[in-house]
Amino acid sequence: MQMLDQVHRRRREGHSIIMLCAGQPATGAPEAVLAEAEIALRSGPLGYTEVVGDREFREAVAAWHSATYGVETSADNVIITTGSSGGFMAAFLATLDHGDRVALSAPGYPAYRNILQTLGAEVLDLRCTAETRFQPTAQMLEELPEVPKAVIVTSPGNPTGTIIDVEELERIAQWCDAHGTVLISDEDYHGMSFGRPLATARQFSDNAIVVGTLSKYFSMTGWRVGWIIVPDELVTPIENIQASVSLCAPAIGQAAGKAAFTLEAAAELDAHVEVYREARDIFVDKLPEIGLDTFADPDGGLYLWVDVSKYTDDSEAWAHELLERAGVAVAPGVDFDPTEGHKWVRLSLCASPADTREGVRRIGEFLNRVD
Amino acid sequence: MQMLDQVHRRRREGHSIIMLCAGQPATGAPEAVLAEAEIALRSGPLGYTEVVGDREFREAVAAWHSATYGVETSADNVIITTGSSGGFMAAFLATLDHGDRVALSAPGYPAYRNILQTLGAEVLDLRCTAETRFQPTAQMLEELPEVPKAVIVTSPGNPTGTIIDVEELERIAQWCDAHGTVLISDEDYHGMSFGRPLATARQFSDNAIVVGTLSKYFSMTGWRVGWIIVPDELVTPIENIQASVSLCAPAIGQAAGKAAFTLEAAAELDAHVEVYREARDIFVDKLPEIGLDTFADPDGGLYLWVDVSKYTDDSEAWAHELLERAGVAVAPGVDFDPTEGHKWVRLSLCASPADTREGVRRIGEFLNRVD
Repeated sequence: MQMLDQVHRRRREGHSIIMLCAGQPATGAPEAVLAEAEIALRSGPLGYTEVVGDREFREAVAAWHSATYGVETSADNVIITTGSSGGFMAAFLATLDHGDRVALSAPGYPAYRNILQTLGAEVLDLRCTAETRFQPTAQMLEELPEVPKAVIVTSPGNPTGTIIDVEELERIAQWCDAHGTVLISDEDYHGMSFGRPLATARQFSDNAIVVGTLSKYFSMTGWRVGWIIVPDELVTPIENIQASVSLCAPAIGQAAGKAAFTLEAAAELDAHVEVYREARDIFVDKLPEIGLDTFADPDGGLYLWVDVSKYTDDSEAWAHELLERAGVAVAPGVDFDPTEGHKWVRLSLCASPADTREGVRRIGEFLNRVD
Repeated sequence: MQMLDQVHRRRREGHSIIMLCAGQPATGAPEAVLAEAEIALRSGPLGYTEVVGDREFREAVAAWHSATYGVETSADNVIITTGSSGGFMAAFLATLDHGDRVALSAPGYPAYRNILQTLGAEVLDLRCTAETRFQPTAQMLEELPEVPKAVIVTSPGNPTGTIIDVEELERIAQWCDAHGTVLISDEDYHGMSFGRPLATARQFSDNAIVVGTLSKYFSMTGWRVGWIIVPDELVTPIENIQASVSLCAPAIGQAAGKAAFTLEAAAELDAHVEVYREARDIFVDKLPEIGLDTFADPDGGLYLWVDVSKYTDDSEAWAHELLERAGVAVAPGVDFDPTEGHKWVRLSLCASPADTREGVRRIGEFLNRVD
């Protein structure tokens, strides 16, 4: 928040700011979705959909998930949520009690930690480093002091962009099944791989809860439409929770969102991924030249996680100074990792190639300045 | 849920069903909103808005609230939420701890009770009868065994449609201020009065939290846009909560929703209220003729709460039988009142006058049937 406030202020003051802190595509919804949305606006009252989501949209998600991963996903197990945020909240409320323990990777997406703490759950950190490409392992779960009620795996990761090995995800799913632990697989950044294979947790266990969204690959953040794919026995509990906490996901995003799964949309969306890959290539090529040679090389997703500890032991202050003096906005690592984040910052792959290059140039100038 | 499943099944079987169970307008968004939405679709990527909502939309809500009630509501105190559901969740998370007690009226909107129980709060029932026109009083709060952390007032009520007396709302606000209790005023059905004056809780206390929505009077249920108006000290805590649990409300509803506050939209929306009034008049006139002479005469809102205890001591079974045998869907009272709801059902004012008349005729035939 403070970072964005500072960005707005600097821009008002007339400074040019390169945004490398954004967690969203700069692009909009696919043309096919916009065309459907225009039709939906004039086709009826856009009232509440079914609590579990519009049936046609659930079927579209199920068909996409089945075809993408070679699994048999039934629309009955797909519940449409208000973004993946709504999916996490519903999954947590359906599976956790006050005081339950949830294991998740550090660094990781801060909202998990915040929601879980708000709900009275206890977070168990899985310390993830370059050694496991910043992803958790079944071995880490085995070494926890106690069996957690749930485990969250995020691949491609936020803030790291790394993709978990398919075999490791399988081992984690098996460990969870063997220990009665709920596996929650955050697949929000699926569709965005630069080459490594992406597996869904549902390939390895029907007990896994998969969380997905139209926000990232499908380039529809502000539409607030996501989904969870859940085991049979959770469908009714989650329906009851949504009936109280959200009523339904936005109707227009469900009506139009079906078109996001078409071949026409895929052509447009895959082209966006090539732009993220270009940003990744620029960073991987140029960051070492300016002195930033320790980072998680992104396998996909929207981010690059870079070690700035040669220059600071306070990434938040460093990020504010970088913005103030060099006009580059990055996300301080403390948001993603409470213990090690002071050494890291997150860069975004969402800027244009020109802006990405200019951002690196400015960071280099900042690092090599003479005060 | 079961009721709607049964409705869908009976319709598939070819039966005509009169829907008197709906909690939403049959109408869509005002034309001015649709026109703005078409522009918004083509004007940019519809990305995340600010966490607290699009500034222009917050200003539109503040201006509407100020002009409607003669108060000075600043846009800084307005936070845009994903429907009023999102507003309640944010307000509860920001003000309640596990085990806190919350007083609310019975009968009342079931989602409060469900969300509060899910969050580990304890519900204190304020038993509301015809004696206080089904609304709580400051005296009821005074008689509670302990001071609650929060009180929820809903006016016009769901399921009762009754409007709290302005003076009583003032007394409740004063009692809450004197006792350090958070007053949460559900003003979702504001705009829909058949004559009684409607006050906002913010007329009487800047400590009150007001919850509002585009869903009801503004006829935009599926758009999932609402707001909360909160004291200064809650703005940042709620911003932090929303940053984790929802990110932002749907962008298109915020971009287009501003037009819901225009004079052009008001003309359209006020005409809808006249249709609800017509349904209310039909019920009030005809229900006694078919033997249903005990009900809360709605002052506004979308519902009529009617006593069916002359005919059943199980309103849920009765409602299912009514649907099966007479083709009229109503909402069983048990959903709204865990202890007395078996004697009551909720009728909706959202059907057309013709359907409302036909619904009453069918209920009469059902009540006076010879088995």
